[in-house]
Amino acid sequence: MNAPSRTEIVIVGGGFAGLWATRALAGDNIRITLIDRRNHHLFQPLLYQVATAGLSSPDIAAPLRHILRRQRNVEVRLGEVTGIDAAARTVALADGDVLAYDYLLLASGATHAYFGHDEWSGDAPGLKTLDDALAIRRRLLIAFERAEACDDPAERAAWLNFAVVGGGPTGVELAGTLAEIARHTLKREFRRIDPSQARVRLIEAGPRVLASFPESLSEKARRQLEKLGVEVATGTPVSAIDARGYTLGDTFVPARTVLWAAGVAASPLGALLDAQRDRAGRVLVEPDLSVAGHPEIFVAGDLASVQQNGKPVPGVAPAAKQMGSHVARAIRSRIAGRAPPAFRYRDFGNLATIGRMAAVVDLHGFKLSGLLAWWFWLAAHVFFLIGFRNRLIVLINWAWAYWSYQRHARIILGGDKP
Amino acid sequence: MNAPSRTEIVIVGGGFAGLWATRALAGDNIRITLIDRRNHHLFQPLLYQVATAGLSSPDIAAPLRHILRRQRNVEVRLGEVTGIDAAARTVALADGDVLAYDYLLLASGATHAYFGHDEWSGDAPGLKTLDDALAIRRRLLIAFERAEACDDPAERAAWLNFAVVGGGPTGVELAGTLAEIARHTLKREFRRIDPSQARVRLIEAGPRVLASFPESLSEKARRQLEKLGVEVATGTPVSAIDARGYTLGDTFVPARTVLWAAGVAASPLGALLDAQRDRAGRVLVEPDLSVAGHPEIFVAGDLASVQQNGKPVPGVAPAAKQMGSHVARAIRSRIAGRAPPAFRYRDFGNLATIGRMAAVVDLHGFKLSGLLAWWFWLAAHVFFLIGFRNRLIVLINWAWAYWSYQRHARIILGGDKP
Repeated sequence: MNAPSRTEIVIVGGGFAGLWATRALAGDNIRITLIDRRNHHLFQPLLYQVATAGLSSPDIAAPLRHILRRQRNVEVRLGEVTGIDAAARTVALADGDVLAYDYLLLASGATHAYFGHDEWSGDAPGLKTLDDALAIRRRLLIAFERAEACDDPAERAAWLNFAVVGGGPTGVELAGTLAEIARHTLKREFRRIDPSQARVRLIEAGPRVLASFPESLSEKARRQLEKLGVEVATGTPVSAIDARGYTLGDTFVPARTVLWAAGVAASPLGALLDAQRDRAGRVLVEPDLSVAGHPEIFVAGDLASVQQNGKPVPGVAPAAKQMGSHVARAIRSRIAGRAPPAFRYRDFGNLATIGRMAAVVDLHGFKLSGLLAWWFWLAAHVFFLIGFRNRLIVLINWAWAYWSYQRHARIILGGDKP
Repeated sequence: MNAPSRTEIVIVGGGFAGLWATRALAGDNIRITLIDRRNHHLFQPLLYQVATAGLSSPDIAAPLRHILRRQRNVEVRLGEVTGIDAAARTVALADGDVLAYDYLLLASGATHAYFGHDEWSGDAPGLKTLDDALAIRRRLLIAFERAEACDDPAERAAWLNFAVVGGGPTGVELAGTLAEIARHTLKREFRRIDPSQARVRLIEAGPRVLASFPESLSEKARRQLEKLGVEVATGTPVSAIDARGYTLGDTFVPARTVLWAAGVAASPLGALLDAQRDRAGRVLVEPDLSVAGHPEIFVAGDLASVQQNGKPVPGVAPAAKQMGSHVARAIRSRIAGRAPPAFRYRDFGNLATIGRMAAVVDLHGFKLSGLLAWWFWLAAHVFFLIGFRNRLIVLINWAWAYWSYQRHARIILGGDKP
């Protein structure tokens, strides 16, 4: 299979960076093996909608094989990378297979991190995969069920107490949508509790939510969250989380549902490279996104630590796509015997949604918030969803959800027992 | 809460029987508690579509609370029944609660059974719940991935060998759809294997598939299955199943994927009643569907063993709905001091789908098969899907799937490792 004239490229990770690199490397004389632990590309920006029962898993995911079926120089491999031998230029898989490469792109992304408090992970689940989203959905829906079945007022209040830790985009989306579910979606469905009495708290240790936005938009976001019914607590970190609740500063708050949206750590695969990493485990890369001393190894997406104008390139989908496409260009340059260009991140702006008809948009000083920002956000996200079918279905689901306040995916999966 | 003038009705199970009874008992002076282990009503006739990645879970399920939100005399309770005290007229739940009733309807349905071979359950999963469907989906999709990653021809063949045990409607649907996936959906997506070389075998111990249909339609169904690429093996039972394969008669066949669609056993809750049960655990009921000696306890749906004209009433959705509605009438009769009427099953006919554009329909002698039968089946099933939104989305999903041969839900969920 290794025809000598062909360049073997191994790409680890079918997220935005890996998939965009793969697509840009179509053509002869190149053979790509794309390895992922999951069989699908995930449109991560809408993952919170699966967690909050607005969309189904297949609405925001598509099988990698299907996306790439017509690109004949790609072999998709479901598998887990367990080792990288940079001297021998091979990648080892958990099933024992060893793949040789001429060029390697590591784009295995990031996971959530608990800042040294891994013992919180069981009581405060994070949101990175579809399985995470379904587990969170299950928790949210079960909490209202437990409150309904419960006769003790204190216990009932604890079941109706929701906290989201982390005031970045994911935390804001989760808190805003959770408030909408409690106030609107579940209205009239319970007989003993009033779901709108649920308390949804968004906790941010820093001074403001959406810290990557201008201050004026953070303030607008806070006001929009409060209008949706979210209590925003800034300036104090959570100091403890267990099955009974959480401690904010010195105050223990009984709460059965705590969601984690605070920390990000790079994929552990970065540690398989002999390369410098930052505190979050991201690999420090050269200007062309290659690893120092290994011009044939590239890192892209959330796993890469890239600085531009003294600021880190953010871990967002557009940056990952741009890095993926850049790596494809860099590999083509090297194959042609030229030095690859340096990577330049083109920042088109920053969007965050807050909840029903509420969002903030920052396009280099041109700022929007509220309904108009929300329409902008919706159009951008539906436009970028992979695959025509998904876009259509997602639009219909959303139109229905917003017209009726209903969330069609309120189905508890996993586990036979309530 | 127990106003003395009100009649307390406890209904166990939110399937067709329980839900239809609940809806027919709307009105004053009646208070209903509907208990289910799951938060949703499931449109079971389309469950095989979730297992074969054609539909998402929320397409065929709706939260019971949502369906019943406007029926103010109903309290929905997520819970598991652990005991019935017929003398005290109470139902005990796993969480310790005890509910008093004036009338009880037990409609907890059926599960799959392995005819005394429970050790097969791990290697030959059955299909009764959404969790079952997602587990089967995962197995089917993983099998093709394993075959692709595998270098040993015998091992690869075993991964591409699929068997469905049981030639009833569920087995026929699974086998037909599986053949379609192998021959059409996955076309061009793999590089080392040819998915259309997969062998799909439908195994029925009896002399013919779809034994509840007239012989001529069984024969038509067999021919349609064979046209879709399914090998139909009748007349010999499976004698062993393990992780490596199955034994048919005396022949061991290496196969990594065996699905179970052969046996049905009534819900174990039937054993909580002091009542006679048939071999499958179904409760023998009086002509009005009550339990002998307990005119205040009713059993309906798949858990009830009802004979009519010397034949058992089949375990199909229309029969369960009719029984549910009948129990509602019977309870109203008893409240009014009248003797309830006897239950009469109105058999409108028998439908089974086989695969793409293939089905059989038997309307009391008026027989259809092939494309026309399939359109009839499709119309009937989409029409009966609960909730307008679901119907619309399901129609769009199907239209897309049949136009493109694609199955949008090919997303492997559950478990981080491949």
